[in-house]
Amino acid sequence: MDPIERLSSLFEKFPGIGPRQARRFVQYLLASPSSSRGELSELIKRLGAETSQCKRCYRWFVKQSAKATGPADLCPICASASRDSSIIFVVEKDADIENVERSGFRGLYFVLGGTIPLASEDIPKHVRVLELLKRVQFDTAEKLKEIILGLSATTEGDHTRLILGEKLRESNIKISALGRGLSTGSELEYADPDTIASALSSRN
Amino acid sequence: MDPIERLSSLFEKFPGIGPRQARRFVQYLLASPSSSRGELSELIKRLGAETSQCKRCYRWFVKQSAKATGPADLCPICASASRDSSIIFVVEKDADIENVERSGFRGLYFVLGGTIPLASEDIPKHVRVLELLKRVQFDTAEKLKEIILGLSATTEGDHTRLILGEKLRESNIKISALGRGLSTGSELEYADPDTIASALSSRN
Amino acid sequence: MDPIERLSSLFEKFPGIGPRQARRFVQYLLASPSSSRGELSELIKRLGAETSQCKRCYRWFVKQSAKATGPADLCPICASASRDSSIIFVVEKDADIENVERSGFRGLYFVLGGTIPLASEDIPKHVRVLELLKRVQFDTAEKLKEIILGLSATTEGDHTRLILGEKLRESNIKISALGRGLSTGSELEYADPDTIASALSSRN
Amino acid sequence: MDPIERLSSLFEKFPGIGPRQARRFVQYLLASPSSSRGELSELIKRLGAETSQCKRCYRWFVKQSAKATGPADLCPICASASRDSSIIFVVEKDADIENVERSGFRGLYFVLGGTIPLASEDIPKHVRVLELLKRVQFDTAEKLKEIILGLSATTEGDHTRLILGEKLRESNIKISALGRGLSTGSELEYADPDTIASALSSRN
Repeated sequence: MDPIERLSSLFEKFPGIGPRQARRFVQYLLASPSSSRGELSELIKRLGAETSQCKRCYRWFVKQSAKATGPADLCPICASASRDSSIIFVVEKDADIENVERSGFRGLYFVLGGTIPLASEDIPKHVRVLELLKRVQFDTAEKLKEIILGLSATTEGDHTRLILGEKLRESNIKISALGRGLSTGSELEYADPDTIASALSSRN
Repeated sequence: MDPIERLSSLFEKFPGIGPRQARRFVQYLLASPSSSRGELSELIKRLGAETSQCKRCYRWFVKQSAKATGPADLCPICASASRDSSIIFVVEKDADIENVERSGFRGLYFVLGGTIPLASEDIPKHVRVLELLKRVQFDTAEKLKEIILGLSATTEGDHTRLILGEKLRESNIKISALGRGLSTGSELEYADPDTIASALSSRN
Repeated sequence: MDPIERLSSLFEKFPGIGPRQARRFVQYLLASPSSSRGELSELIKRLGAETSQCKRCYRWFVKQSAKATGPADLCPICASASRDSSIIFVVEKDADIENVERSGFRGLYFVLGGTIPLASEDIPKHVRVLELLKRVQFDTAEKLKEIILGLSATTEGDHTRLILGEKLRESNIKISALGRGLSTGSELEYADPDTIASALSSRN
Repeated sequence: MDPIERLSSLFEKFPGIGPRQARRFVQYLLASPSSSRGELSELIKRLGAETSQCKRCYRWFVKQSAKATGPADLCPICASASRDSSIIFVVEKDADIENVERSGFRGLYFVLGGTIPLASEDIPKHVRVLELLKRVQFDTAEKLKEIILGLSATTEGDHTRLILGEKLRESNIKISALGRGLSTGSELEYADPDTIASALSSRN
C-alpha cells in the first residue's frame, strides 16, 4: 500500500474517525511544513519512552513530572502525600479523572479501563477487576475506608457497578455510587422517572 | 386574508411550529375527511367550557373527572383525600406534573407558570409568586411542612429558586431543591464539575 | 376519553407531531384566550366549505379568490389566461407549487398526490395517474407540448418518473425531467458521482 | 510542556478536532502497542520524502507510483497519455478529485487550493490563480479547449468562479461551470428557487 493510503488507514483506527476525515488528516499533513510533521512524528515515537502507566491507579502519566514528586512508577496523584488515601474514586477511563479533579475531589483514583458488557462472562477481559481487588486488599492494610464506583449512569455502567459491588463486598469497605439527580442544564419535563425519584430522595 | 393563509398563521403560533410545518398542517386538514375536521373543531371550541384551571395548584383539568371526586374548582389531585398534603412540589408547567407522578411522588403540586428571567424586576408578571405565597399561608394553617422547588437545573431555574427561597423564608416551612447528580444516561467524561461535585456529595 | 386526551390524540396525527408536542399544543390552547380558540375552531370548521380542490390540477384553493378570476371549480392558476398552457409541471404535493412559483415558472401544474412505492402494483392507489392521463388527453387537443415530471431526486421519485414516463409515452408529448446537478450550498467533496456526472453534462 | 500535552495540542490543529477528541487520540496512542506508534511515527516522518506535489495540477501524490508511468514531478493523472488534455477540471482541493474521478471524468485537473473570500483583495494569497493562468497559457499552446470551474455551489464558490472567469477571459478558452439542479436525494419542497430555476432550464 502506498504511504498516503497506509497513513490514511492508520488514522481511520483513531477513535471517532471515518475514512473521509482520515484522508483529510493526511492532506493536512501533506500541506504542513516538514518541521511540523517532524515534531509530530518525534512526539509519537517518544511517547512510549516518556510516559508510564501508574502501577497503582493505571492512568498514563509523563515520567519526568512524577520523578520530581515521588517514585518513578507512580503518577503525581498517587505519589502525592497531600491526597486523601482513605477514599478511591473508580473511573472508567483516564479522561474522567480530569473532570473529577475539576469538581474538587482530593482522594485517590483507580482507572477500570472500561465497563463490563451485559452478556460477558469473562470480566477481567474488559476491566481491571483483579487489579482493583488487589489494590483494595493492599490499601485496606493502610487506611482505605471508601470506594466510590464512579461509573456512567448507563445500563452497562449499572451492570458494572453491580458486579464490582459483589466482588468488593467481602472487603468490608464502604462501597458508594455517585448520586443520581438532575444534571446541570436538564429540565424536569425531559427527565426520566428514575432520575426524578433520585432527585427527590436526595433533595436538600 | 384567505382562510388557508389565516389558519396557517394561527398554527405558526403553536409552540415549536414554523411556517413550513404550519402549511403542512393546513394541507393535512384539507386532505382530511370533513368529519375529522368537524371533531377537531368541536373539541377546540368546547375546550374552554369543559376544562377548568385548578384554584389550588393552577393546573388545567377536565371538569367532569373532578366532579366525581370533589369540589368543582379543584383538580383531581388537589381534591383527593389520599394525597400527602404536608408537601408541595412546585413545578414550572403542567407537563412537568405527569413526569413527577410517574416517579411515584404522592404529595401536592403548584404550577408556577414559568421561570423568572435574570434581569426581570416584575416577578409576578412571569410566575405565580403571589398565588404561591397565598397558597403557602393558607396551607400552613393546615399542615404544610415542606415545599420542593422543582425547577429546571438551568441558570434561570437557579435564579427562580433563589428568589422564591427568599420570598418563602418567613413562612418557616422547609424549602428544598431537587438533588443534582448524574441523570440517567450521562457519562462522567461529559459531566460538568458542578454536577460531579453534587453527585459526590449525594453519593450513597 | 376526556377532551384533553382526545384533542392530544388528534394533534398526534398531525404530520411530524409526537405525543409530547401534541400535549404541548393542548396546553398552549388551554392557556390561550377563549376568543383565539374560537377563531381556530371556526376556521377549521369552515375549511371544507370555503376551499375547493381544483378539477384540473388537484391543488386546494380558497373558493372566493377563484370566483374573481374564473370558473368556480378551477384554481387561480388554472383559471388564469396569462399562464402558458403548453407546459405542465407535475409535482408531488401542493407545497411544491409555491416553491416552483418562486423560481419564475409560468406554465400550469398537476399535483400527483405522492410518489409510487417501489414494490407497489396498484399505482392509482398512491398517485393520480389516471387523472394525469385524462388531463393530458384533454389538454393535447388544445395545445399541450411538454410535461415536466418534477419529482424528488430520490429512489422513489426516480421510480415514479420511470412509470409515468412509460404511461405517457403514447401521448407523443415531450416528457422531461428536472436537471440534476449541484444544488445551492453543496460542495463537490460531498456530492455523489451521479450528481457530479449530471452537473458535468449540464455544465454551461 | 509535557509530551502528552504537546501531542494533544498538535492533534487539536488537525481539521475538525477539538480539545476533547485530541486528548482521546493521545489516550488511544498510549494504549496502543509500541509497534503501532512506531509505524505511525515512521509514516508521518517519511511522508515528505515519499510524496511530491504535482508541478502541473498541484495535487499530492506518492513518488513511486508516478515513476512507473512518467516524469518524476508529475502525478499519475497528469503523466498519463490516455487522459483528455483538451479539458481541465479546476477543483478546490485534492479530495474533490477522487469524487470527480468516480463520476467518470477523464480530462485533467488543477487544484486551486481553496476559494477566494468575499472581501479579499489579495487573491494569490488564497488560491493558486497565478499558477492557473500560467498553466492555461502553457496548455493552450498545446490543445486546451475548455476549463471547467468545478467550485462549490456556495456564495464563496460563486465569487471565486466570477473572479477566475474574468482573469481567464482573455485566454479565449471556453470557461464552463458545473450545472446546478436537484442533487441526488433532494426534494422539490426543500429546494431553493435558484436551484429549481436551474433544474428547469437544464431539464432533459
